[in-house]
Amino acid sequence: MTHPSLGSFRRVLAARGEQGDRPYGTPGTGGPSCSPREILRRLRGAVPGCPLLSHPEELRPYECDGLTAYRQIPLAVAIPESVAQVQEILRVCRTLRVPVIPRGAGTGLSGGALPNRSGLVLSMTRFRKILAVDPLNRTARVEPGVTNRAISEATSPFGLFYAPDPSSEVACTIGGNIAENAGGLHCLKYGLTVHNVLSVKILTAEGEWLVLGSEAYDAAGFDLLALLIGSEGLLGVVVEATVRLLPRPPLARLIVAAFPSVESASTAVGKLIGEGFAPAGLEMMDNLAIRAAEAFVHAGYPVEAAALLLCEFDGGPEEVDDQIELAEKRLRESGADFLRSSSSEEERLLLWKGRKSAFPAAGRMAPDYYCMDGTIPRRSLPEALLRIARLSEEFRLPVANVFHAGDGNLHPLILYDASHPHELQQAERLGRRILELCVELGGVITGEHGVGVEKLGSMCLQFRAPELAQFHRIKEAFDPDGILNPGKAVPLLHRCAELGAMHVHQGALPFPEIERY
Amino acid sequence: MTHPSLGSFRRVLAARGEQGDRPYGTPGTGGPSCSPREILRRLRGAVPGCPLLSHPEELRPYECDGLTAYRQIPLAVAIPESVAQVQEILRVCRTLRVPVIPRGAGTGLSGGALPNRSGLVLSMTRFRKILAVDPLNRTARVEPGVTNRAISEATSPFGLFYAPDPSSEVACTIGGNIAENAGGLHCLKYGLTVHNVLSVKILTAEGEWLVLGSEAYDAAGFDLLALLIGSEGLLGVVVEATVRLLPRPPLARLIVAAFPSVESASTAVGKLIGEGFAPAGLEMMDNLAIRAAEAFVHAGYPVEAAALLLCEFDGGPEEVDDQIELAEKRLRESGADFLRSSSSEEERLLLWKGRKSAFPAAGRMAPDYYCMDGTIPRRSLPEALLRIARLSEEFRLPVANVFHAGDGNLHPLILYDASHPHELQQAERLGRRILELCVELGGVITGEHGVGVEKLGSMCLQFRAPELAQFHRIKEAFDPDGILNPGKAVPLLHRCAELGAMHVHQGALPFPEIERY
Repeated sequence: MTHPSLGSFRRVLAARGEQGDRPYGTPGTGGPSCSPREILRRLRGAVPGCPLLSHPEELRPYECDGLTAYRQIPLAVAIPESVAQVQEILRVCRTLRVPVIPRGAGTGLSGGALPNRSGLVLSMTRFRKILAVDPLNRTARVEPGVTNRAISEATSPFGLFYAPDPSSEVACTIGGNIAENAGGLHCLKYGLTVHNVLSVKILTAEGEWLVLGSEAYDAAGFDLLALLIGSEGLLGVVVEATVRLLPRPPLARLIVAAFPSVESASTAVGKLIGEGFAPAGLEMMDNLAIRAAEAFVHAGYPVEAAALLLCEFDGGPEEVDDQIELAEKRLRESGADFLRSSSSEEERLLLWKGRKSAFPAAGRMAPDYYCMDGTIPRRSLPEALLRIARLSEEFRLPVANVFHAGDGNLHPLILYDASHPHELQQAERLGRRILELCVELGGVITGEHGVGVEKLGSMCLQFRAPELAQFHRIKEAFDPDGILNPGKAVPLLHRCAELGAMHVHQGALPFPEIERY
Repeated sequence: MTHPSLGSFRRVLAARGEQGDRPYGTPGTGGPSCSPREILRRLRGAVPGCPLLSHPEELRPYECDGLTAYRQIPLAVAIPESVAQVQEILRVCRTLRVPVIPRGAGTGLSGGALPNRSGLVLSMTRFRKILAVDPLNRTARVEPGVTNRAISEATSPFGLFYAPDPSSEVACTIGGNIAENAGGLHCLKYGLTVHNVLSVKILTAEGEWLVLGSEAYDAAGFDLLALLIGSEGLLGVVVEATVRLLPRPPLARLIVAAFPSVESASTAVGKLIGEGFAPAGLEMMDNLAIRAAEAFVHAGYPVEAAALLLCEFDGGPEEVDDQIELAEKRLRESGADFLRSSSSEEERLLLWKGRKSAFPAAGRMAPDYYCMDGTIPRRSLPEALLRIARLSEEFRLPVANVFHAGDGNLHPLILYDASHPHELQQAERLGRRILELCVELGGVITGEHGVGVEKLGSMCLQFRAPELAQFHRIKEAFDPDGILNPGKAVPLLHRCAELGAMHVHQGALPFPEIERY
C-alpha cells in the first residue's frame, strides 16, 4: 500500500533537517575523509565497469523510497553486478568513511533506503538471477534483486510458491524483504520472511563474506541468520539467499462475516485462533472502512455492519470446505449476523477487492490520511479498538480501521485535512497516542513496515536504555566503522533521553518522533 | 536419549585435560582474581539467604550433564530463588572474574552445562513457577526452571500444550530448552524452541535485565530473541520466558511402512514432504535398527525390511483419516511392501515403542556404541544413507540408523567393542567421516544436541574463520568479560587453525575434535 497523502503531513517537518546530518539514529562514520570528487574518483578506479551515477538528474529517482515524505539526494548511486564489485565498493567506502545505503526496489514504507547526503546508495537491482530451484528439497537459491513474484513464477511449474506476499510483491526484492522482515496478507499461516529464508550469504562492512543459516533444518552456532533478517541494512549486504518454497494449495475460499459491534468481531478473532483454526488470512474492517470500500468498489459488503471479518482458508478441497463450514458456525455463534462465502475464484477475488481497495477508498473520505502501523497481542484486540474509538472522539478525527486481525497488526487510518494546521497536529498527537496504546497493551510500535527513519523516535518508547545499548553493541559487532545505513532503525541513546526530558518538560507523555528534529 | 557407552570412548581422552583450562572454546575471564575462599566469602556476603554448595560431596551431582564422559567438579554451586539474587551473583562473579555456568536440569547431551574448575554453577532449578496462562492469547509465562511437561500439564485443562518434546521432556527445563534450541519427535510440524518462544527476560553478564522479543507477532529492533535461543548459555541468563501454546490435536494416527531398500524409503520421505504432506513426525529405521528393536520390544515390525518409515498425522479425525489414506497410497507408490496404520491409541503407542526403544535395543547388539548427531538437507537423504553404508563397510563397523527423516536429522549409531583399542579408533574415524559427509552435503554438524564441549572441534569444519570471528564478536557484545559459560559452543580461531594444520600434516582431512587436546 502507499501513503498518498503522507507527503503533506511530513513535508514541512522533513524540510527542517535531513538524514545526512544523522541527528538521531545509529551513529555513522562521522563523515567521509575526503572530497566528493575524490570519493567518486576512487570508486571509479576500484570498479571501472560499474555504473556510478552522480549527476543530480540521475540521482533524483533514488532520493526516497516508499516513504516519500523524506527525500535526500545522495552523493552517488552505484549499480554493481557482481559480488566482487560490491566487495570493492565496500572496501573503498570503509577506507574513506563513506556511508553505504543498500537499496532493493525502494518500496519500503519507513525510509529504510533513504539516502545519506554524503553517502553512496548501493543499488542491488542487477542481482536478479534465480540461481537454482530444487523442487525435492523445496528451496530456491536467488540473488537479492529478484522479486517475490519472480520466485513464485519460476517455481510454479513445480506447483510451488514463495509465501511472503507484501502488497508490493510484484516489485519488491528478496534483499529488501530480508532487510525489513516482510510479511503480507498470508503471514498469519505462512510466517514472515524470517520463517521462509533458510540461508543467506552476506558481505560485511569490511567486505568479508559470511554464510548465515543452512539448508538443513537447524544450523550450528549463534542464529546470525535471524539476527540479520529485519536488521534494515545495518549489519551487512545480502548477496544471495536460499528461500523455502511451499506447495501451492489447490483451493482457497473466503468468508465475509459482518458483526453488530467491533467487540463481537474482535472476540470472534480470538475464538477462531484460540480453537486452532489456521486461516491463511484473517482481516478486519470497521464501519468507516466498510462504507468507504463499498462505495468505491461495490464488493457487496453490508454497509450497516459495525465490523467485517474476512477469513480465508486454503488447502485441499475437502479440508477447505470443512474449515469454511466449521468457521461459519463459530462466527455465527460469536454474533455474526451476515455471512457470505465464496463459491468461485471470481467471487473470492471480488470479496477481497473491497479489502484491498480500502486504503485508496478511505483516502476519498478526507483530504489527507495518516496510516499507522503497530502490533498488539491478539487478546487485546477488543480493548485496543475500543480505546482507539475513544481517542478518535477525544481528538475529533475519524479513524478507519482496516487491518490484519489474525496477527494483531493494526493499521488505523487517521483522516484529517492538512489545510488546517490544527488538524495536522491533532492527527500527529492521535497517532502518537495509538502507538503508546500498542506498547501499553504489550505490543509493538511497528507491524510490517519497519522502523527506518519514520519510527526512530517510537523506538525510545518501546525499549529501555539497556536494550537500545545492546542493539548498538550488535551493530558495532558487525560494522565497527558504522558505514552501513547509518541513522536508521536504532535511535541514539542520548537522543532518547533528550526526547524523554523534552516531552516531560512540555507536560506531555514521552513520545518523541523524528519529525520534531 | 542417553549414551551409556560413550564413557568408555571418551574417558581416557577427557582425562588428558579438563574444561577449567579452557584449552579450546570461547575465551574466558583469564581466571578469578582472588582465592576460592575469598570468592565464597564474597558470594555468601552478597546473597546471604542463597544456598551455596562447596563441599566435594555436594558438588558431585553437578560434575557433568547428560554427556557423562566429561566431568569436572566446580568451585561452587549457587541455587538462587530470585532474580535479585541472580543479579547479585553475576555482579560478584564479574567483579572477581569468576566463570558462571548456568544450569537447568542437566539433561543436555553435548556438555553445555559442564562445570569449570574455577567457576560457579548457577542452578536455576528453584525458578519453577508457572506465572500465568493466557488461553485466549495461547501463551504461558514461566520461570526458566519449569519443565516442558509441567507446562503441558498446567495448560491441558484449556486443551493446550507446549509443542517441543525432546526425549527428556519430563525432566528438562525451559531455560535449558532455550539454551540448546531443543527440538523433539514432533518438531517437523511444530518447530524447534525458537518457533515456540515469544519472549524472554534475561540477565546479562553485567547484571542488566533485557526483554527480548514480544508477545505480539513481530518485534521491533534486531532479533535478539532468536540470537539468544540456542546460544548455549554464552549470552545471558534466562530468568523468565513467554511460550506459545498450541491446541491439543484431538487425534493422532501412525503409519508404519516397510521398504525393500533404504533408497526407496528415502525417496518416499522426499516425495511425502515435497507433495505438501505435513506429518507431525516422520522417522526412519534401517534393517539393523529394525531387527534390534523388534527383538527387544516385539512391536510387530517386519524384520526383513531394509527400511521402515514411521509417519504420524494429528489433527481433527476426518483430516487425519484423509491424510493417512492419501499417505498410504503415496508410500505404496514409492515402493512400500508392508503397511500398517494404527486404529487405536493403544496400537499407536505399541508401534512407536520399537522406535523409542531403538537406542537401548541397538546397545544390546554390541558392547559399545557411539551416537552421532548431524543434519542434512532432506534431498540428500538417499545419498547420505548410501554413503554411510559404504563407510560402514570400509571401516568394518556396523552402523544402525534410527532418525528424524522428515527434517534430515541423522543419528547413526556406530557399534563397536571398546575393549579393542583398534575398534575405538575406527569408530572415532568413522564418526568423523560421517560428520564430514553431513557438511559436504550442505548439512550441519549438530542436530538437536548442540555443540557444548562435544562438538567444538567440528565447528572448525562447519565454519570458516570469518564466521567464527563473527560469533566471537557477538559473544563480546553481550559478555565483554567472558564470564558466561566460557569454553563452550564456539571454538577459538587459533585452535581451529592449529587443528587444521595438524590434520593436514598427518595427511588426513581437517576434522579436529576436542578429545585430541
